Amino acid sequence: MPRPSVRGKLVAAGLETFHAKGFNGSSIQDITEAAGVPKGSFFNHFKSKEALALEVLEPYGQSSRIDMLFDKTKTPLDRLKTHFEFLADGYAAWEFERGCLLGNFGTEMSADYPLMRQALDRIYGLWSSSVAAVLREAQAEGTVSTALDADELGRFLVTAWEGVAMQLKVTRTRKPVDEFFKIAFRVLLK
Amino acid sequence: MPRPSVRGKLVAAGLETFHAKGFNGSSIQDITEAAGVPKGSFFNHFKSKEALALEVLEPYGQSSRIDMLFDKTKTPLDRLKTHFEFLADGYAAWEFERGCLLGNFGTEMSADYPLMRQALDRIYGLWSSSVAAVLREAQAEGTVSTALDADELGRFLVTAWEGVAMQLKVTRTRKPVDEFFKIAFRVLLK
Repeated sequence: MPRPSVRGKLVAAGLETFHAKGFNGSSIQDITEAAGVPKGSFFNHFKSKEALALEVLEPYGQSSRIDMLFDKTKTPLDRLKTHFEFLADGYAAWEFERGCLLGNFGTEMSADYPLMRQALDRIYGLWSSSVAAVLREAQAEGTVSTALDADELGRFLVTAWEGVAMQLKVTRTRKPVDEFFKIAFRVLLK
Repeated sequence: MPRPSVRGKLVAAGLETFHAKGFNGSSIQDITEAAGVPKGSFFNHFKSKEALALEVLEPYGQSSRIDMLFDKTKTPLDRLKTHFEFLADGYAAWEFERGCLLGNFGTEMSADYPLMRQALDRIYGLWSSSVAAVLREAQAEGTVSTALDADELGRFLVTAWEGVAMQLKVTRTRKPVDEFFKIAFRVLLK
């Protein structure tokens, strides 16, 4: 395995630090220290802290395993459940302290960082339309009612899920996840 | 009307500044400047920035007009709709830049500020149980199905709403609100 580059170390440390401390709560020094690289090296690789935050969206997205939504060995509803359970297990691994990085950035950065706002809008669009695609499969096989529009329902589920991710930080219990499944999934069943 | 005290000015400026810039994005100097008081006066009134953040929860809560949920001149479902519409109008007044202060603090502060996390947990509990009380009225009069537990549904609606408040910041459109009404309210109708 090749040794990680300084740039790669900064991306990994940025992901970790932003997720733990938020965007405004993370200084460039926090990140270079976590990366074990000289502070001065930061600007050789990124023109700003925002530029690094935009960069960590990619590995964060990969860790979210959206591909699991398209695992055709499972039924559409099983895939949806597995998808959100996988995300919930990730939050639980940090004792519900960190929540969803996308929601954290969306909350903290949307007003002042237009590039981040646009990137998040795009990512939420992709995520929601992936969920909608699975819902359409479920509608086609008759396990989800066609009374609701799959695109709207996909966006609603992702939006509600982001509320869950925030509430997990506040309650420090899995209850918001369990109620999401109990109620949101009951909506899906026809 | 009495002139506002220095303390009152700090609370009003804290509410405004935290809502606009977030907790970590607001310095004590930002707040004393917005309040038009000497920087040194801050610590005469608050022992920390967190202490002021806890204090602004009270006027923020009052501005959210939970009392509208109990306006018996309206039907329970009308009250719920009016409640969330009132909140949405508040977000729209800031062009969806600020979102919900509770969700902002919950996202940014829960991990590092246990007093804030506990205060938010309590406030979300009160808010959710107020929504649940209205849902129970609607169940009693037969306009909402009794198939779902009112307490769980109340918590789910508030949780999903906080997802909406975050998404408004990202999309800068009212669409997440409209889809919340379209989908969440359809769940409510039996």
